[in-house]
Amino acid sequence: TFDKKNEKDEVGIVRGLAWTSVGGDTLEIEVNVMPGKGEFKLTGQLGDVMKESAQAGISYIRSVSEQYQIPDDFFTRHDIHIHIPEGAVPKDGPSAGVTMATAMLSAITGKKVRADVAMTGEITLRGRVLPIGGLKEKTLAAKNAGIRTVCVPGKNEKDIEELSAEIKKDLEIVYADTIEDILKIAFVKE
Amino acid sequence: TFDKKNEKDEVGIVRGLAWTSVGGDTLEIEVNVMPGKGEFKLTGQLGDVMKESAQAGISYIRSVSEQYQIPDDFFTRHDIHIHIPEGAVPKDGPSAGVTMATAMLSAITGKKVRADVAMTGEITLRGRVLPIGGLKEKTLAAKNAGIRTVCVPGKNEKDIEELSAEIKKDLEIVYADTIEDILKIAFVKE
Amino acid sequence: TFDKKNEKDEVGIVRGLAWTSVGGDTLEIEVNVMPGKGEFKLTGQLGDVMKESAQAGISYIRSVSEQYQIPDDFFTRHDIHIHIPEGAVPKDGPSAGVTMATAMLSAITGKKVRADVAMTGEITLRGRVLPIGGLKEKTLAAKNAGIRTVCVPGKNEKDIEELSAEIKKDLEIVYADTIEDILKIAFVKE
Amino acid sequence: TFDKKNEKDEVGIVRGLAWTSVGGDTLEIEVNVMPGKGEFKLTGQLGDVMKESAQAGISYIRSVSEQYQIPDDFFTRHDIHIHIPEGAVPKDGPSAGVTMATAMLSAITGKKVRADVAMTGEITLRGRVLPIGGLKEKTLAAKNAGIRTVCVPGKNEKDIEELSAEIKKDLEIVYADTIEDILKIAFVKE
Amino acid sequence: TFDKKNEKDEVGIVRGLAWTSVGGDTLEIEVNVMPGKGEFKLTGQLGDVMKESAQAGISYIRSVSEQYQIPDDFFTRHDIHIHIPEGAVPKDGPSAGVTMATAMLSAITGKKVRADVAMTGEITLRGRVLPIGGLKEKTLAAKNAGIRTVCVPGKNEKDIEELSAEIKKDLEIVYADTIEDILKIAFVKE
Amino acid sequence: TFDKKNEKDEVGIVRGLAWTSVGGDTLEIEVNVMPGKGEFKLTGQLGDVMKESAQAGISYIRSVSEQYQIPDDFFTRHDIHIHIPEGAVPKDGPSAGVTMATAMLSAITGKKVRADVAMTGEITLRGRVLPIGGLKEKTLAAKNAGIRTVCVPGKNEKDIEELSAEIKKDLEIVYADTIEDILKIAFVKE
Ligand SMILES: [Ca+2]
Ligand SMILES: [Ca+2]
Ligand SMILES: [Ca+2]
Ligand SMILES: [Ca+2]
Ligand SMILES: [Ca+2]
Ligand SMILES: [Ca+2]
Ligand SMILES: [Ca+2]
Ligand SMILES: [Ca+2]
Ligand SMILES: [Ca+2]
Ligand SMILES: [Ca+2]
Ligand SMILES: [Ca+2]
Ligand SMILES: [Ca+2]
Repeated sequence: TFDKKNEKDEVGIVRGLAWTSVGGDTLEIEVNVMPGKGEFKLTGQLGDVMKESAQAGISYIRSVSEQYQIPDDFFTRHDIHIHIPEGAVPKDGPSAGVTMATAMLSAITGKKVRADVAMTGEITLRGRVLPIGGLKEKTLAAKNAGIRTVCVPGKNEKDIEELSAEIKKDLEIVYADTIEDILKIAFVKE
Repeated sequence: TFDKKNEKDEVGIVRGLAWTSVGGDTLEIEVNVMPGKGEFKLTGQLGDVMKESAQAGISYIRSVSEQYQIPDDFFTRHDIHIHIPEGAVPKDGPSAGVTMATAMLSAITGKKVRADVAMTGEITLRGRVLPIGGLKEKTLAAKNAGIRTVCVPGKNEKDIEELSAEIKKDLEIVYADTIEDILKIAFVKE
Repeated sequence: TFDKKNEKDEVGIVRGLAWTSVGGDTLEIEVNVMPGKGEFKLTGQLGDVMKESAQAGISYIRSVSEQYQIPDDFFTRHDIHIHIPEGAVPKDGPSAGVTMATAMLSAITGKKVRADVAMTGEITLRGRVLPIGGLKEKTLAAKNAGIRTVCVPGKNEKDIEELSAEIKKDLEIVYADTIEDILKIAFVKE
Repeated sequence: TFDKKNEKDEVGIVRGLAWTSVGGDTLEIEVNVMPGKGEFKLTGQLGDVMKESAQAGISYIRSVSEQYQIPDDFFTRHDIHIHIPEGAVPKDGPSAGVTMATAMLSAITGKKVRADVAMTGEITLRGRVLPIGGLKEKTLAAKNAGIRTVCVPGKNEKDIEELSAEIKKDLEIVYADTIEDILKIAFVKE
Repeated sequence: TFDKKNEKDEVGIVRGLAWTSVGGDTLEIEVNVMPGKGEFKLTGQLGDVMKESAQAGISYIRSVSEQYQIPDDFFTRHDIHIHIPEGAVPKDGPSAGVTMATAMLSAITGKKVRADVAMTGEITLRGRVLPIGGLKEKTLAAKNAGIRTVCVPGKNEKDIEELSAEIKKDLEIVYADTIEDILKIAFVKE
Repeated sequence: TFDKKNEKDEVGIVRGLAWTSVGGDTLEIEVNVMPGKGEFKLTGQLGDVMKESAQAGISYIRSVSEQYQIPDDFFTRHDIHIHIPEGAVPKDGPSAGVTMATAMLSAITGKKVRADVAMTGEITLRGRVLPIGGLKEKTLAAKNAGIRTVCVPGKNEKDIEELSAEIKKDLEIVYADTIEDILKIAFVKE
């Protein structure tokens, strides 16, 4: 059974998209930010590529922290924990990069993320969004979960164009070249 | 032989439920909180998924610490040790998540946990309770151990409904969507 | 050849009992407590289960330290080293738990342990004593070593009852449900 | 499809060259320098040889820091993160040494690196540039990416001379014996 | 060819005895003590059992440090390095325990060790000397190296008695039950 | 092709000798000493034996630091990095011990090392030089690299005597029993 989108917009929870040879699924990424001493925890049976992807994301956020009014000593005085349920299912690959970065920045800044947005894409240290695979399965999973807007890498535009009109009906597709393109869509307008 | 429930309500000891292909069993999770420097120890041959589950639980507790009047520096000035006897038996999986979280919060706050309550369910970083497997075997094991109330994930309601009336007789089933739903039941009323 | 019991009561040395498919043996657990910075060393080719068992024991002791007049900062200002000769022989399992805990508490408090007492049993974080195997072989080994009193888990009572009168002759069997039951017997009366 | 060169000169991004048995490719190395405590992070599925190569590069930079007006305590008060997208593709070998060193020094000093320069070569602890393999495939990949200037080790001069005039047309080849030879070319003139 | 004994008594160098299926050999254990922060280094391709044996030895020395006028903060303000040449040859087993302990105490106290003494025996945390194997090969190797006095565990007395008079001719055999028995012989009289 | 000797005497760069079943080669060991906090880095795909050999060398240097006017806190206030190009080639064995020690002491003291000297030999913690293998191949490689003086262990004298006059022509062979014997030759006279 497909997981449904969350019922309300929340801080630190963002919907990602995953796919395997047997189909797509959504996965919900949770981030807690706590007073601490700069530890960075990653749980939910994440593989090496996914962990490195999270590290690229947090380094990107640190490098643009001024732009988001994050205090200089924030990262040494807080712990950040990323968890991806379901805890027994191994997860890997770079395509949750943008989702983890969005969830972290939401948790750090306290900005809510729209519950009806899902996203997929590799993130680089400089915030660029790189293309990923499984667009068809992921788009379908997003739709079944009740998602309205899906952010995908700009360089996947051709893959999206090849999808049937049926799949894309009632789904807004946003092309992102940088994580900033995604944040503009995903964060709830205050 | 089945382990029996504890004779009295205690602080930092909570009854969980486990199952294997050969049947269900209860397992008692013990937590000690000691003056220390923020170490988090996990013993009793716990597998990776179970250890990550404990980390999700403690991060959840840290994120709601104000609500439980836990001082700001509590977690850097204490060590927390979770142990699951029997020490030679390997244990794994996410389904002890709610049990470990309840035992930790009991040990931290000094609130007693009811000896006649058992529980099972994956916990997420945000305190949500996710469905798990083996409901039939676990329910039976709880009953044989003398348990009166079993907390299960709300999303396992259908699995419980399929159980025979015989198994459910004299057992109170509590459906939990969040760990707070469980804590309301498990903590002894003062 | 069987190892003989020690000739005199000592601080920090306690006799445990082990068994393999080819018979039982006694093993002497040594503990040194030194001024230090809180390190916990375990040597003598101990396996994972045995090391976790030692950690459960030390956490138990830390949780009851007031009751033994152990100063608050004792554990951060001392190193504790558990060694089990013969150093080339791999050892594992939870059944030396009570022996290691007794040896540590002896070394910490300076109380002597009776040389004619041996013991076996899993210890939990809360000081409960859980049943173990190999009672026949262990009891025989204790006897051959010149031991007078053997402490065993209360839940092994049935196993002891099944032993021949021959084996039990001249041996005092003490049933313990908690480590405190053992300490009352093992520490030399002052 | 070949990756194209960046559109504009940037700080901390440098184009390297890679090759496998099936052909050459360019790879973009990203470096972020952040206020921190001296951590050195390497992500993008880098192998051991490549990680050691990065360490040789940073030690070289530290040993010549005065020459670049880098403050004495810079390296203990900042974290340096090297990331090489695409995060799921394993990368290894010493030939990205000069590229990583150039990207790090750019990020540390704030000097821009020319987007139309690519480079390849092993770096030693003392800043010497050692020869590497795959010159033909790498040169071709640089050309296809729109690169104008390629820096190669001086000791690879013979390999370059053996390339067809076709490949070298419109490409400036710079021979480097030390990393300083490369920096003179790669850094944008202010 | 057999290694010869050292030509003069030195501080921190002690001759041990080893044996393999193809014969015995002597091995020289070197210890340096340096101003530092309490690190304990073990090099020369030592196996786990041998490393633990060294740890038992240093803990023993720390526990009797007062008796040797070693200042209270000595072990946190110095680093201790044990090295056993020949660095490419793997070494293991508990029988170098007494040798490593003697070399460490010599280096710590500055007392010279007799060059014509060799020793073998397992050491326990409490300084007891336990029996080891290979006495015939070890004794022969000591003799060939020009050693005059060999310290062996008291519990190996029977093994020594079984050796031919030929082997024992001109060799003084000292039986040791504790490491103190060895130190009395090995340290040069001042 | 054989690597040639360096053109000029340098600080922290020393020529070693290696051999494999297919012949000998020289290898250049580079050492940087940087302000830091006592880290010791070893790169260039060094195996365990070679890393331990480097540790023996640095401990030796620390133990004789007064003799070289090295300040007491030098080693806690600097990082030392040993790198052996070519970074992709695995290297191991104890025979680079004297070379690494010489390069380190050169980098620490700022004394230049003669570019026309090469050396080989295991170093012990006490600065003794132990014999190694491959003398024929190593000597030949030194000669081909343009080396004038080769330092070898005194205990390899017989191996050198067996070499043909042809190989030894124009090569000065220096026999070393201790690293000090080598330093006297290798350091440039001021
Ligand atoms: Ca799912
Ligand atoms: Ca992908
Ligand atoms: Ca059970
Ligand atoms: Ca489950
Ligand atoms: Ca024995
Ligand atoms: Ca057992
Ligand atoms: Ca590519
Ligand atoms: Ca290469
Ligand atoms: Ca030898
Ligand atoms: Ca032995
Ligand atoms: Ca070479
Ligand atoms: Ca060799």
